[in-house]
Amino acid sequence: MERIYNFSAGPAVLPREVLEQASDELMNWNGCGMSVMEMSHRGKEFGSILETAEADLRMLMAIPDNYRILFLQGGATLQFAQVPLNLLGGGSADYIVTGDWSKKAYKEAQRYGSIRLVANTEADGFTSFPDWPDLDLDRNAAYLHLCTNETIRGVEVLDFDTLPQGVPLVADMSSHILSRPMDVSRFGLIYAGAQKNVGPPGICLVIVREDLLGKVAPGTPTLLDYAIQAENHSMLNTPPTFAIYMAGLVFKWLLRLGGLDAMERINTEKARLLYGLIEGSGFYHNPVQPAHRSRMNVPFTLREPKLDETFIAEAKRHGIVQIKGHKSVGGMRASIYNAMPVEGVATLVNYMKEFEKAHG
Amino acid sequence: MERIYNFSAGPAVLPREVLEQASDELMNWNGCGMSVMEMSHRGKEFGSILETAEADLRMLMAIPDNYRILFLQGGATLQFAQVPLNLLGGGSADYIVTGDWSKKAYKEAQRYGSIRLVANTEADGFTSFPDWPDLDLDRNAAYLHLCTNETIRGVEVLDFDTLPQGVPLVADMSSHILSRPMDVSRFGLIYAGAQKNVGPPGICLVIVREDLLGKVAPGTPTLLDYAIQAENHSMLNTPPTFAIYMAGLVFKWLLRLGGLDAMERINTEKARLLYGLIEGSGFYHNPVQPAHRSRMNVPFTLREPKLDETFIAEAKRHGIVQIKGHKSVGGMRASIYNAMPVEGVATLVNYMKEFEKAHG
Repeated sequence: MERIYNFSAGPAVLPREVLEQASDELMNWNGCGMSVMEMSHRGKEFGSILETAEADLRMLMAIPDNYRILFLQGGATLQFAQVPLNLLGGGSADYIVTGDWSKKAYKEAQRYGSIRLVANTEADGFTSFPDWPDLDLDRNAAYLHLCTNETIRGVEVLDFDTLPQGVPLVADMSSHILSRPMDVSRFGLIYAGAQKNVGPPGICLVIVREDLLGKVAPGTPTLLDYAIQAENHSMLNTPPTFAIYMAGLVFKWLLRLGGLDAMERINTEKARLLYGLIEGSGFYHNPVQPAHRSRMNVPFTLREPKLDETFIAEAKRHGIVQIKGHKSVGGMRASIYNAMPVEGVATLVNYMKEFEKAHG
Repeated sequence: MERIYNFSAGPAVLPREVLEQASDELMNWNGCGMSVMEMSHRGKEFGSILETAEADLRMLMAIPDNYRILFLQGGATLQFAQVPLNLLGGGSADYIVTGDWSKKAYKEAQRYGSIRLVANTEADGFTSFPDWPDLDLDRNAAYLHLCTNETIRGVEVLDFDTLPQGVPLVADMSSHILSRPMDVSRFGLIYAGAQKNVGPPGICLVIVREDLLGKVAPGTPTLLDYAIQAENHSMLNTPPTFAIYMAGLVFKWLLRLGGLDAMERINTEKARLLYGLIEGSGFYHNPVQPAHRSRMNVPFTLREPKLDETFIAEAKRHGIVQIKGHKSVGGMRASIYNAMPVEGVATLVNYMKEFEKAHG
């Protein structure tokens, strides 16, 4: 069987060239006679892999020198605790809830100190972001937390220029990091589980402004202390070496493609194709406000839910898999991350047209 | 260049057949058209991988039904905090320090409650285990912690029948799990970072007796709560899917080999070859008491430390790599985990004989 178009929300499709390279050198990296998985993390071979990955990420995202890059474990979920443990410093923080992930982050943070909920879009079904100027923000908060792309409902902050200033922003960017140029200097801390746009699951990127470090809560497990991880270049203990290597291959792939400007053009085109079809159809529906529609995760429902199963089964015959929507939303969800080629979206769009013709 | 004999203490050599299979199916697992790295962790494909890995591990180690198997992140280092956070329950624990790893575990645990140091072999250079009957143990302790194989100094508990009873034993088995049959029922909790005998770095096995769960300390990050992880079958969030898949391939390899009895015979033979040479030589030296010599990690010094560099350089020409000892000990260290074939040890032994003849 040929490889297929995989619309999973994560773990998700990886660039084909990246998988080919990983496959080619799995037994023997760069002629050293070892797999990357077998290398000592303190050796020069892995040292060069880590250093290159970090430098390439810094270049891709134009990360300023006063930000540290950490490759951690435990996914974004562990960050939900690690962020307040490291940044609250006895103070308070503001949280914005705009979907299932930011809600989880808010819930976990409440266990560690004074956390204010300054906006919650749940009443409107998580279909938008709040109007930033209207928010009652605490200018003395340790930070303001938000999730800039919510995978389940498919809402995204498309213009970072609209975000509040004056307080360190902490953003969960798991599901849209690297999808376009992003001004890192607007944020105090960015975190991202890898398994959407970065690589396989098992690492979580943290990009943190140095001056925010050093306020860790007593009793925080040493491994979860950002400052100690930064001092140790993410190698306080054995890091997930193979996942870091894979992320490094993805960074090289993005650089070859032309960087994040090029990636944005491709992602914009893919989203245009898919939302264009949905908009022009009376058969498919997406409830998100147009200005907040995610370019990464496109949930949509069919006119009649009883057609869902047929849609999924016929999709599979077209090579389209993992398209089912999250159980809390129903319908379908097409996650069209960086590694999903335009042809994959075109294949989906053509199938959706056919399906509408047959069943609409 | 051919693959070489890699004596790294971890990440370490993996079975060649396992790497070959991983390489063959990296782009397309079991004809599904996706890499394991691209699969949703909630899908049936990864579900079968996780379930099989867990069942195979349970069979290999004959893990009783009242023990839960968890596939976690953060390595043994995170367990140094996670064990006391989950098991102390406001009580105290006893710790035995017999090397660099148990010392780190002891140090981290002190941050979470009342921790007693009941034995410390540092004064004798960490070259033995204490006499268990002589220890002044607290029969009311929440647990007694030890590291049953210390990678840096190369000391190992070879006979679990000698271990104390009457208090739950918590063992860091990172560097010798699966090296021989082990009676799990002697322990309350076993943990093991994967990157020696289990698979690539990025997962940590935890095997825990169910009745010890449910005493987690307030403020413990949700992801670090064993009981919640057990309820969620290690899938509270996205687990390190590819590392779990690789561990599963290693479990299958062990089963094909004949299980842990067969593995023990091979490991005993490898250790006999190497210690035999060292014992019979006036040129090489290992300071560990014979009854406690590790079958996994064999540190040794050369008569003159100034020969170390030559030894390492010439070893490389014989295809022997990552043989340098830990900086705190000096000399050499040959880690001869499960995946190191007898021929690898024979090659090393022959080289050591030649080197002694030339330089002794």
